[in-house]
Amino acid sequence: MPSVDVAGEFETIRRLLAPLAHPEWGRGLLDDVAVVPSRTGYDLVLTKDSIVEGVHFLPEDPMDTVARKLLRVNLSDLAAKGAEPFGYMLGCFWSDRCGWPEREAFAAGLKRDQTEFGVALLGGDTVTTPGPASFSLTMLGWVPKGRAVGRDGARPDDVVLVTGVIGDGYLGLQAAQERLSLEPERVMALVDHYRTPMPRLAFAEQIRDLATAAIDVSDGLIADLGHLAAASGVALDIDLAALPVSGPAQAWLDGRVDPQDARVRLATGGDDYEIAFTARAGDEAELRRAAERQHLRLTTIGRVVAGTGVTVRSAGDIVAIGRPGWTHG
Amino acid sequence: MPSVDVAGEFETIRRLLAPLAHPEWGRGLLDDVAVVPSRTGYDLVLTKDSIVEGVHFLPEDPMDTVARKLLRVNLSDLAAKGAEPFGYMLGCFWSDRCGWPEREAFAAGLKRDQTEFGVALLGGDTVTTPGPASFSLTMLGWVPKGRAVGRDGARPDDVVLVTGVIGDGYLGLQAAQERLSLEPERVMALVDHYRTPMPRLAFAEQIRDLATAAIDVSDGLIADLGHLAAASGVALDIDLAALPVSGPAQAWLDGRVDPQDARVRLATGGDDYEIAFTARAGDEAELRRAAERQHLRLTTIGRVVAGTGVTVRSAGDIVAIGRPGWTHG
Repeated sequence: MPSVDVAGEFETIRRLLAPLAHPEWGRGLLDDVAVVPSRTGYDLVLTKDSIVEGVHFLPEDPMDTVARKLLRVNLSDLAAKGAEPFGYMLGCFWSDRCGWPEREAFAAGLKRDQTEFGVALLGGDTVTTPGPASFSLTMLGWVPKGRAVGRDGARPDDVVLVTGVIGDGYLGLQAAQERLSLEPERVMALVDHYRTPMPRLAFAEQIRDLATAAIDVSDGLIADLGHLAAASGVALDIDLAALPVSGPAQAWLDGRVDPQDARVRLATGGDDYEIAFTARAGDEAELRRAAERQHLRLTTIGRVVAGTGVTVRSAGDIVAIGRPGWTHG
Repeated sequence: MPSVDVAGEFETIRRLLAPLAHPEWGRGLLDDVAVVPSRTGYDLVLTKDSIVEGVHFLPEDPMDTVARKLLRVNLSDLAAKGAEPFGYMLGCFWSDRCGWPEREAFAAGLKRDQTEFGVALLGGDTVTTPGPASFSLTMLGWVPKGRAVGRDGARPDDVVLVTGVIGDGYLGLQAAQERLSLEPERVMALVDHYRTPMPRLAFAEQIRDLATAAIDVSDGLIADLGHLAAASGVALDIDLAALPVSGPAQAWLDGRVDPQDARVRLATGGDDYEIAFTARAGDEAELRRAAERQHLRLTTIGRVVAGTGVTVRSAGDIVAIGRPGWTHG
């Protein structure tokens, strides 16, 4: 599609993006399309996340981590379905502030995480915008035929589990905005989590084999569990005291006047990119062993019961949740 | 990914986009992913185009035609590869001016063209932006295994052909900007072409079977032929007098002081979404018969020769082309 005549767009593709292309399927980014062979016995799994400067990332965020986070949040969606990612289509809307150094940093971030997660650029396009820098990414992966994990398979008496820790996304954003008074290295760890969350792809196989329903924690643990409960037609009973938190988050909790309210904020803040899922109680031990082999923290935080909605308890009492998470904006 | 809390985003998905979802693969847009079964014997073909208000479409353009054009320019890319589209992932960046009426019009445009072209919404996301309204679409299609048409198969003595007419994209933009003095119904026809170009999907099968190389005309006929020539390692000899133009374009040409210069502008303006391709000279008659059956205009505009680049001739003389087309912006 024709556009304003901006020097450097072809050059951006040729010099920065073409080296990231899948050696075969990406066609060197010289064609308008990517061509991917079908994989017999597998379904294709697709997800798409879009981000806008000033809305989903901060103007101060380094462009290499903006690129890495964009990849990671999409990879996280696939991990929660038990899928294995292989490539992605990328749409870049460059703003005025995206000169060569910023574009190079963005490409360097993509390159680094492509290597880490085994994915390659398939195609896409790059345009300029008078608005804020924005990016849209479609991630593709494979899952054995019919085995993509839904949100709708949770059944009463299943257990509710979550990988990793919850709340570092919430605290990480505050840390990146310099609104957190903790020791510098704790602040740094939280900023790192905010900028480069870890998609739980290493655990995708276990999710595929043993989860009855799964979702990645992006909007906020309680909100995302609400989506899962609604899709499954069940209720979830969650123990706030069981919420797994990191060292920095525990330090932050220790400084709060109202620790229960603070814990609710961690459970509703979002941007965690862990996998919240349900499983048969009989499979809990096997899941735990698999997580231990990966040195991945795995925590049972509740139970599926008949009914609707998510009930959060603390020492047996029901905790009122004003706002279970962020809504999509 | 969490975002600003904008009322109506979930509602936009539930009320406007979910009804457009593929009945099976889109999962009602209730999951973070789409799941598409592999199709044995076929390759997956993907393309992605992004558009920005004020750059790729006009603020005055009705939102239903903005949506339809976004679908059509992506469908055009697949047609030029000989592929059959089936679905798409959509990223919407809504601006302040995208209230309910605009979002409803956008969804109505999608719905109309989904029906016309046999595609369905698979998934995606919707965010808000303080910048101009922007959209990014990844279109997916199938092509029999190994049969996607490249840009690199043109060989000396092949003929160069183009579907439909060239230049209505260039004139259509001017018409939409009210910069064209022609009879009102001719202006209207050009505006229609600008807003809803026709992807040549009906001719995709012939392209797949008989084209040696193909590209859709988006940047400008001469520029796009230049991409094809470069990828194929050949030169193209194009006859400017053979350029197929519409009635309104002919009327416009008739009013020009320098008709040759005017014809060059049509051949370099872009936004046509026709298919320019090469084929063996021996297949020309069969292609012509197929086009006639479809009442599709098909014009031989030149020949492939040894060498590099695109040479444009008029009555035997070489025509200097200052700028072969738009560059990607």
